[in-house]
Amino acid sequence: MRPKLVLFGDSITEGSFDEGGWGASLANHFTRRADVILRGYDGYTTRFAIKIIKKTMEEIGGDEKSLVAAVTVFFGANDAALPDRRYGFLHVPVAEYQQNLKSIYACIKKIWPSTIVIFITPPPVDDEARVRLLPEDDTSGLPERKNEVAGEFAKACIAVAKDCSSPVIDIWSKMQQVPDWEKSALSDGLHFAALGNKVLFEEVLQELKVVGLSNETLPADAPPVESFL
Amino acid sequence: MRPKLVLFGDSITEGSFDEGGWGASLANHFTRRADVILRGYDGYTTRFAIKIIKKTMEEIGGDEKSLVAAVTVFFGANDAALPDRRYGFLHVPVAEYQQNLKSIYACIKKIWPSTIVIFITPPPVDDEARVRLLPEDDTSGLPERKNEVAGEFAKACIAVAKDCSSPVIDIWSKMQQVPDWEKSALSDGLHFAALGNKVLFEEVLQELKVVGLSNETLPADAPPVESFL
Repeated sequence: MRPKLVLFGDSITEGSFDEGGWGASLANHFTRRADVILRGYDGYTTRFAIKIIKKTMEEIGGDEKSLVAAVTVFFGANDAALPDRRYGFLHVPVAEYQQNLKSIYACIKKIWPSTIVIFITPPPVDDEARVRLLPEDDTSGLPERKNEVAGEFAKACIAVAKDCSSPVIDIWSKMQQVPDWEKSALSDGLHFAALGNKVLFEEVLQELKVVGLSNETLPADAPPVESFL
Repeated sequence: MRPKLVLFGDSITEGSFDEGGWGASLANHFTRRADVILRGYDGYTTRFAIKIIKKTMEEIGGDEKSLVAAVTVFFGANDAALPDRRYGFLHVPVAEYQQNLKSIYACIKKIWPSTIVIFITPPPVDDEARVRLLPEDDTSGLPERKNEVAGEFAKACIAVAKDCSSPVIDIWSKMQQVPDWEKSALSDGLHFAALGNKVLFEEVLQELKVVGLSNETLPADAPPVESFL
């Protein structure tokens, strides 16, 4: 039976099946070999995620629990909202963010002990774009998220992954290696443009390959048409 | 618990999560309300589909059988390959095509009695493009599929849907209402370009709405972030 890949995260996960999105690309890539299950929640931080994760994951399971091969856990973009700015109500202190990530990990492993949890750090932030795109009623001229702070959350996420002996994708660093990343990889200083989606898609593919999940190793779900001729 | 929409068909279904594809668009549209399950099989005709359908559908079910709300059944593009041409080995006579569609319907309804089966007719064919895109080793100058024949299969599909009291999307006719459909809606005279994908996506949405499956009627899978504040 074919394995499932679950994508659990915030709006960057929820929107990952939009045109050229990293989630749709994964589903397309594994078309005959694995199902990609979308569990993205716009605006969610880890504080909200831990309130819904048990029910959310258990409902995926049914009696096929052993089939969830991997879960991507991609939070932090909202946790890292600056506490004294526009989206301060979303802010989660970094220590709590780490504790919540550990709770998420523990919950997933309790339901599916053999599942690989792939952490993904928050993406980088283009501070200037965030200021430019502030709503008209916000005349502060100050970004509600900052790349430097996102970087602290990224480091914190990497540390949790290490504690859990889990793979982690440092998309905060990887994305900033893309030439002109602020404009080429991001669409609004936070969410992904086509190139950013491609970068994350390839990083997830790579991590899945490392843990033995690739189109080379997974069986196709039905014979090729030639076998019937 | 959220319902599943299963897409069962040939390469036009298998490739439906590629950039701008109708399957990915459905998954994106229902992001918080339904799961779109991809079961597309490149090159398959109904003759091959009936060999794999029982196992394929049963594996989706698990103990969540009642949750498969709808299945799109989209075959015929390969069945309609002309018998005396390049892909003649795929040809299925129209009477057998109809019988196979009925078997597919019966199999799905046996597993999930309340599931809505949405038939989709074969798409139109641009005969000229099919000639132009023949491989170099084929100097026949003759198309391996013809729009007129695809139309006969479309009519046959509609008749089966009527017999089954099931909804049907006559994509053969709908697509030909698009201005310059040969070039605007199709990419190679058979598969869908971006516009063709959009047309089918909207048709499927419409049929799902008729049977009560829409973002207005389906509950979201978790509270909006505002509810936590």
